[in-house]
Amino acid sequence: MTTPAPTWSFLGPGGTFCESALRQVAPRDVVLDPCQDVPTALDRVRDRSAVAAVVPIENSVEGGVNATLDNLVAGAPLVIAAEMAVPITFVLAGRRGTRLEDVRAISTHPHAWAQCRGWVHQHLPEAVYIEGSSTSAPARALAEADDAAAAALDYQAVLCNPLAAEQYHLSIIAGGVADNPDAVTRFVKVCRPGRVGEPTGADKTTLLVQLPHNRAGALLDMLEQFSVRGVNLTRIESRPVGDSLGRYRFSIDVEGHIREERVQAAFIGLHRTCPFLRFLGSYPRLDSLPVVVPAGTSDKDFVVARSWVADVLDGRTL
Amino acid sequence: MTTPAPTWSFLGPGGTFCESALRQVAPRDVVLDPCQDVPTALDRVRDRSAVAAVVPIENSVEGGVNATLDNLVAGAPLVIAAEMAVPITFVLAGRRGTRLEDVRAISTHPHAWAQCRGWVHQHLPEAVYIEGSSTSAPARALAEADDAAAAALDYQAVLCNPLAAEQYHLSIIAGGVADNPDAVTRFVKVCRPGRVGEPTGADKTTLLVQLPHNRAGALLDMLEQFSVRGVNLTRIESRPVGDSLGRYRFSIDVEGHIREERVQAAFIGLHRTCPFLRFLGSYPRLDSLPVVVPAGTSDKDFVVARSWVADVLDGRTL
Amino acid sequence: MTTPAPTWSFLGPGGTFCESALRQVAPRDVVLDPCQDVPTALDRVRDRSAVAAVVPIENSVEGGVNATLDNLVAGAPLVIAAEMAVPITFVLAGRRGTRLEDVRAISTHPHAWAQCRGWVHQHLPEAVYIEGSSTSAPARALAEADDAAAAALDYQAVLCNPLAAEQYHLSIIAGGVADNPDAVTRFVKVCRPGRVGEPTGADKTTLLVQLPHNRAGALLDMLEQFSVRGVNLTRIESRPVGDSLGRYRFSIDVEGHIREERVQAAFIGLHRTCPFLRFLGSYPRLDSLPVVVPAGTSDKDFVVARSWVADVLDGRTL
Amino acid sequence: MTTPAPTWSFLGPGGTFCESALRQVAPRDVVLDPCQDVPTALDRVRDRSAVAAVVPIENSVEGGVNATLDNLVAGAPLVIAAEMAVPITFVLAGRRGTRLEDVRAISTHPHAWAQCRGWVHQHLPEAVYIEGSSTSAPARALAEADDAAAAALDYQAVLCNPLAAEQYHLSIIAGGVADNPDAVTRFVKVCRPGRVGEPTGADKTTLLVQLPHNRAGALLDMLEQFSVRGVNLTRIESRPVGDSLGRYRFSIDVEGHIREERVQAAFIGLHRTCPFLRFLGSYPRLDSLPVVVPAGTSDKDFVVARSWVADVLDGRTL
Repeated sequence: MTTPAPTWSFLGPGGTFCESALRQVAPRDVVLDPCQDVPTALDRVRDRSAVAAVVPIENSVEGGVNATLDNLVAGAPLVIAAEMAVPITFVLAGRRGTRLEDVRAISTHPHAWAQCRGWVHQHLPEAVYIEGSSTSAPARALAEADDAAAAALDYQAVLCNPLAAEQYHLSIIAGGVADNPDAVTRFVKVCRPGRVGEPTGADKTTLLVQLPHNRAGALLDMLEQFSVRGVNLTRIESRPVGDSLGRYRFSIDVEGHIREERVQAAFIGLHRTCPFLRFLGSYPRLDSLPVVVPAGTSDKDFVVARSWVADVLDGRTL
Repeated sequence: MTTPAPTWSFLGPGGTFCESALRQVAPRDVVLDPCQDVPTALDRVRDRSAVAAVVPIENSVEGGVNATLDNLVAGAPLVIAAEMAVPITFVLAGRRGTRLEDVRAISTHPHAWAQCRGWVHQHLPEAVYIEGSSTSAPARALAEADDAAAAALDYQAVLCNPLAAEQYHLSIIAGGVADNPDAVTRFVKVCRPGRVGEPTGADKTTLLVQLPHNRAGALLDMLEQFSVRGVNLTRIESRPVGDSLGRYRFSIDVEGHIREERVQAAFIGLHRTCPFLRFLGSYPRLDSLPVVVPAGTSDKDFVVARSWVADVLDGRTL
Repeated sequence: MTTPAPTWSFLGPGGTFCESALRQVAPRDVVLDPCQDVPTALDRVRDRSAVAAVVPIENSVEGGVNATLDNLVAGAPLVIAAEMAVPITFVLAGRRGTRLEDVRAISTHPHAWAQCRGWVHQHLPEAVYIEGSSTSAPARALAEADDAAAAALDYQAVLCNPLAAEQYHLSIIAGGVADNPDAVTRFVKVCRPGRVGEPTGADKTTLLVQLPHNRAGALLDMLEQFSVRGVNLTRIESRPVGDSLGRYRFSIDVEGHIREERVQAAFIGLHRTCPFLRFLGSYPRLDSLPVVVPAGTSDKDFVVARSWVADVLDGRTL
Repeated sequence: MTTPAPTWSFLGPGGTFCESALRQVAPRDVVLDPCQDVPTALDRVRDRSAVAAVVPIENSVEGGVNATLDNLVAGAPLVIAAEMAVPITFVLAGRRGTRLEDVRAISTHPHAWAQCRGWVHQHLPEAVYIEGSSTSAPARALAEADDAAAAALDYQAVLCNPLAAEQYHLSIIAGGVADNPDAVTRFVKVCRPGRVGEPTGADKTTLLVQLPHNRAGALLDMLEQFSVRGVNLTRIESRPVGDSLGRYRFSIDVEGHIREERVQAAFIGLHRTCPFLRFLGSYPRLDSLPVVVPAGTSDKDFVVARSWVADVLDGRTL
């Protein structure tokens, strides 16, 4: 008797960058569960249909992925267990025989279009854009069109990632298409919360925190909860609370692990002073760079300081 | 001989919430120039095809409108001249005679869909979603469909704003559709920069600032440039600089007007210490609430203090 | 068999304001041990010759008493157990029969002289000052002078406190002498450290802390260790470390008790980041005003926050 | 006809460390005006009897000289024009023929005694201390005693500075007497205010500032007025305001010159927010170390930033 292969949900359809991200960390025998949107993918983990979900969280050009940021705060708690980066370059692909100079129309997801507009403007200034629901759906549509439509489709191309072109047996008309060749999307693997694992020394922690209402300087005060413990922020994004203009939650990444004293101390400070705080996971950093712990903020510094206070309370000041 | 009516560009098509916002502030005889996207609408002002553009900048549910925030920083300078709020509630509209219980499919823009999903789930759990390119385009499509298609379309509805339903002569099946009845989108009127006008006492100033690279505490330092002059932030949004993960610009609204000393002092501090700073306009606040100027930060306080320093330099200390 | 009466040392001689302060808190049967200077009085407690010492720590006109501040940091640890305030007004006293208009010379301690100079200038502009080693020593000298000197001494007066005039049977020539009628000196009762007692809810804590060397903004950082935990400072005095110009220790009073979480958290932060930290006692405030604990900094807030972190670590996020 | 030699007042009597400090900066033909106390020396400048006063302001062991700090804030404005450091080491001096082992009594000023107590304890444990009114007065007394007293005086010595021993023709019994051989006193040359001179690039500025009453975090806010402009503090001392316990003024030295933009900006910020502010001079640093101006706080940075704001106001945003 064998253990059934685990199911992982992700932002589908198959063949998008999200699947590429999933492939970086999933086991070989993973059962893919492509979902139509981020909330659905995450709910699959919540309702135990999947053991993990892979969703985009940040794009170096477009910024935070709101659907992910907002869903992580809204539903039952989930935690990030890993992060993966996928370079966002596209291939222009078509049916066999389509040449660059033939292309009259290009279909892809609007985000992809936004990231290739400059290239298209330069190489195919006359091409018309046809909005697609993902980067791979138009590829599949092109591949699966019956012969009756074929003549027209010879003048059509798609911008998709190399994986999709391969899966749907399309020809590459042009590779490395991207206005910003350094564009990258960060994806995360999300799981149900469980006992938090051990730090690796090169970790990152994600959290969501809401500022106290109606207090000038509240953001400054919140940031000092980190700085006074030497905890460095690597990302901060504001998201509206949603009930009226002018109230924000902040989605934050910090260097370090919730099992480290200085990170815990910052969390305790935030919990005391902010009306909403959610822990969204401690996990190894993408770049594996060891976190530089500022002087006076190591675990040992905290332990020694607490022990000194205990000595003081018992009259053992030396 | 008469002056030609002014042209205003906006995020089209006509009949969307953006037109409603434009109608709040545009002159009666305005010539409407609906544009397919925000960059196009703003470029019309840059190339003098339009005297003003109206575009969304922030939604109380979805957050900042990235296309607007990013375009304002990227191209030739523009400034915000006014802000308008439009409550975001939809009508479910269809062809004459369509009843709620008949509706099998609903089309609208994905953002609108996101804001009505709960309502649809409750009232039309079986309805299929058809993605539309705006909230008004599906309304027009429904209205303009020829009779041959009519039978099928009797089972279809759109979520649009009341203006669009009226313009395309659709019947209202249900009104006040919105998961969050307080949802509101803030739009801005954008112009070419000119001599900055006088403060009203209830003003707001928008700016874009980029933090110095690679410095821990840079965000804290930046915020102190405001707090030390008693300048209160009402909005802060991070946007990626776009060249790599981990570098951000901040789009910020503060209370007060660039002609006020404390706001100028904050700008001077930011200009000195940040690699990129763009002024995006001082304009009357939507809520007309007079700005509370903290003790020691009035224009007079600055004038008196500068005069005191001048006295000191000349040896007139008293 | 009876317990011997306890010995208390203090800044002598008898009859000074320091004895007045001691009388406020010492038991009836206390054995007085007047000492020639503050270090001697404190060393009596260190070497167990006395159970407590009473010494001045701060004067509302002259500022901190350096001898006390510096000795508390230099020798074996001692802690403050109580604080007492004594209003500093003097009597002008002389031998029986001396009238105000007769006074040609006035003797007292230089500090007392400094606090009465205005009064003397107004009432006895011709009077010569004779430096005394305390406020009571000249009173004793005047009282104990033999008759041979009496004639000359009829033209002499002393500025002392009422207690000294009474002890040495001098006549009061003028009462309530003080340039600043609100002048007050704060004294402290100092003991050997032992198990720290329970908070009263209206407590104060004294500490000494040295800033890390050669770091700009070190004072600001140190103060943030208090502010981020809502701990309010009521006194801060800089003292040179003593090895070179430009290095300082700070003697600080804060509201609250070392058995309170927010005070402990501040101490832990200081211990982590500062090269020298000494606890100098938690004791009831002179004014008995209950400490206002800022929102989010009560003991319960800390306990709940720590428990939340423990839940997170075990995967019990709710 | 010749200009009369200028008169300089100082903390007398002659032969003390203060005269040594004065000799470092005064012209050759200066007329010395030794005064009995600091207030008198400073008042000589105020009433134009002297062109400058030299007084101690800080001792590396004892801390700030309160008489100087308090007088500079109380009377008509004066400004510091120069600072001088004098190493504080003493000689043990006596009448001709007095040997170390003969010395039974030692006289000096209490501050000097405090700084030599350890040395005396080690070398002359039996010696009695006789309080003197300065470090040089006992030297003169010893020198001028008539022969009748000579026998007794052979057993007496004084702790004074080398200058006094030389002036009064005493023999050096021991040199280099000091518990802390690095002890140094900083003196200042004080003048009437006039047009402030030009910066040297290695300057210091002294000021007195009082915190707004009854505001938690007021000290932190005040320090941020400096830090946000990159102005570094080298000294901060609290002094009581004098009307009640718990209210303080701060005497502060910062790096930089009041003619520099960042220092002016800090002064403007303090003037706006603090109830009392006094400029006490910009003058060359003792150590001649050029001030390191943090990035973004040079005069040019300020000028460019102000000009940018002027451009914005006129609509010349580029």
